[in-house]
Amino acid sequence: MNYINVDESLRVLLNSFENISSSQLIPSSESYRRVLFNDIYSSHDVPFYDKSHFDGYAVNSSDTENASSDSPLLLKVIDSAELTDNSPLSLQLGNSMKIRTGAFVPYGSNSIIPKENVKVVDDYIELTSPINSGHGIVPRGSDLKSGTIIVKKGSIIRSQDLSLFRLLRIPDVAVYSKPSVGIISVGSELSDNLKEATSGKITRSHDFMVHQLISDLGAIPKDHGIVHDDIELIKKKLSSLLSGSSIILTIGGSSVGESDLVSQAIQELGDPGMIVHGLQLQPGRVAGFGCISGTPIILLPGLIQSTINAFIFLVFPLIRKLIGLPADRKDWSLYATLSDSVTFTSFTNFKHVTWIRLKRVNNKLIATPVIGDSSMLNVFLQSHGYLLTDSNVTQIKSGTLVEVNQIRGMIGSPFD
Amino acid sequence: MNYINVDESLRVLLNSFENISSSQLIPSSESYRRVLFNDIYSSHDVPFYDKSHFDGYAVNSSDTENASSDSPLLLKVIDSAELTDNSPLSLQLGNSMKIRTGAFVPYGSNSIIPKENVKVVDDYIELTSPINSGHGIVPRGSDLKSGTIIVKKGSIIRSQDLSLFRLLRIPDVAVYSKPSVGIISVGSELSDNLKEATSGKITRSHDFMVHQLISDLGAIPKDHGIVHDDIELIKKKLSSLLSGSSIILTIGGSSVGESDLVSQAIQELGDPGMIVHGLQLQPGRVAGFGCISGTPIILLPGLIQSTINAFIFLVFPLIRKLIGLPADRKDWSLYATLSDSVTFTSFTNFKHVTWIRLKRVNNKLIATPVIGDSSMLNVFLQSHGYLLTDSNVTQIKSGTLVEVNQIRGMIGSPFD
Repeated sequence: MNYINVDESLRVLLNSFENISSSQLIPSSESYRRVLFNDIYSSHDVPFYDKSHFDGYAVNSSDTENASSDSPLLLKVIDSAELTDNSPLSLQLGNSMKIRTGAFVPYGSNSIIPKENVKVVDDYIELTSPINSGHGIVPRGSDLKSGTIIVKKGSIIRSQDLSLFRLLRIPDVAVYSKPSVGIISVGSELSDNLKEATSGKITRSHDFMVHQLISDLGAIPKDHGIVHDDIELIKKKLSSLLSGSSIILTIGGSSVGESDLVSQAIQELGDPGMIVHGLQLQPGRVAGFGCISGTPIILLPGLIQSTINAFIFLVFPLIRKLIGLPADRKDWSLYATLSDSVTFTSFTNFKHVTWIRLKRVNNKLIATPVIGDSSMLNVFLQSHGYLLTDSNVTQIKSGTLVEVNQIRGMIGSPFD
Repeated sequence: MNYINVDESLRVLLNSFENISSSQLIPSSESYRRVLFNDIYSSHDVPFYDKSHFDGYAVNSSDTENASSDSPLLLKVIDSAELTDNSPLSLQLGNSMKIRTGAFVPYGSNSIIPKENVKVVDDYIELTSPINSGHGIVPRGSDLKSGTIIVKKGSIIRSQDLSLFRLLRIPDVAVYSKPSVGIISVGSELSDNLKEATSGKITRSHDFMVHQLISDLGAIPKDHGIVHDDIELIKKKLSSLLSGSSIILTIGGSSVGESDLVSQAIQELGDPGMIVHGLQLQPGRVAGFGCISGTPIILLPGLIQSTINAFIFLVFPLIRKLIGLPADRKDWSLYATLSDSVTFTSFTNFKHVTWIRLKRVNNKLIATPVIGDSSMLNVFLQSHGYLLTDSNVTQIKSGTLVEVNQIRGMIGSPFD
């Protein structure tokens, strides 16, 4: 097998399938966690008008210039500005007006005194100090200015954006479409029958994790069951999925041996067939990808850590690119101090993935390597993220500050 | 208004409603992001049997003791262990057996040689060095040991747990039930008619954010529309929701003035009525809660920052408790260095919430305060989390290491 540099592999993969993103218009209220396809501009000022910040009294500050505790000022309360008013009322100099939080500031008024700072005497309020112009007023456009970009293309839509869309009266938004990702598990040893799995058969399980990671990313996973180790069955299954899938994933059957039938099937279907088979990545080296008639087929190895590493290095960035995010191999990363040295004795010219448990002690994050055979699911049960080590690095010493990459679908909380 | 310490308020709230959690059994494949109600034990060893880590050849290490490049050892290949075998084959001393990754290690064999390290000569393999006992074997139970706790009660279920449940053949899991949270927006000024909102009417929008935050937490938000400022209408609406809601939220109408009708309605419905009205929290001080016939009613103020702060300080921990998580006011927190000093000049005996934008520069997180009137939604559009300052702290100096609390539903990524 000709092992290819993982960065180069990814570059080839992304370049091969750069034009398969699309967008769709959806109700803005259903857009949570989707990725915006266009910048969102504010179509008007928010607030629409100068409004009161308090329940209180609207005055004109020029009236209050000489107010003091020695010589208190009395202003007659002549009306009441309510939230349900359709337009601002008018205030004459020498008067004041009762006003509700959020109501139009009356014409002729330029400041609001909160009711708890004012003494009311019959129909008058009594002031013992001057008020600054603008006090207690939320000016028109101070929250959002008409014509400015409020949320950028490529943003992941958050809960606050849903309120924003409503406030700006945006009923629909354009978002990147969700790619459809077909999953095939390959292997005559696999079974979906839980009872059958005690002896030779193995319970198909990896695809459950892969399925959820795809869904959490914002794509649509589609389970297409088990295919036995038979090249004609594999070809038939792949062909049947080409038209309905943005991406096809195969799990298992990708090691180099008599049973390495998936790459053979892709090669025979051609157009063009296999592109990369073998990554300089450990675990995960027997991963690869091909293309049949424009649809990418990604081969994920059968041992769980290899499955997931290959998913993270090829599928994850490809899906992110298709949904409008940077083609990263992580959702984000955190820096942490390594608790124990990590040593690589084999495949030293490959990049290595080490899974990490994170714990916060006082203000500091501590990264503890979780070591286990690449067939072990338990490694993921213990982990919060992974450390990527460059080729030809044979040791990372304890005490080193390392970058721990995190995948949202693999964590409850980012650390203990 | 009698402002109550927020920690004390939350304690009263949680104690008042401590027995309203429940659990349900759901298909394990649909349990993503739910919270486990019971510990999950491994019912058997994984792997079920000693299996091969490679495609290669099974041998007995004692045969190989004298192998060297000067005197290579030849072992006859007598059979082939396949993944589809139902039980281990047997190997006699002096022979070897071809074996597939994951297949049963044959009886009489104790190590596996990867095929790339072996020379095949006709029906024989040629070894030039001794092999250690156990080499290339994944022992029974090395991933998961029968009878041990694998995932703990109170864990948020991740993608890898779905594979685990499948591997352990667990068809259903017990999780905390999703509480149903009713939302009422209160105010005669509110409208759902987007065209009507240009003049006096205000587009109802806060509830969209609140709705999504509830859903992201793992509860079921239920929108019950707008109620005008009419005490009889409010009482009628509240009464109608009592039987179908675990929690009822009201948004708006909670300031102390003529229009403060919600607390009055709760008080009149009684059993027992209002419990706390007024928090030592800024923004958010006019929040509160009551109880009618066992159902908590939480009053969220109408200015968006007050709405969300009150949500985070009362509703968020209550929902977390109901779904089996610690009653925290955050999903998690990150430490960051404050870029600018923050000063509090009013309500200095209250706790203060300051919203924060986080940016990573090299390895360090920088926390920049996002300042804006409590009516501004834009503050949330710019923020990644919040800083909580204790009462009587009037300034936090730039350069201080601060804890930034994060809410999952309010972030795309935890920082820029």
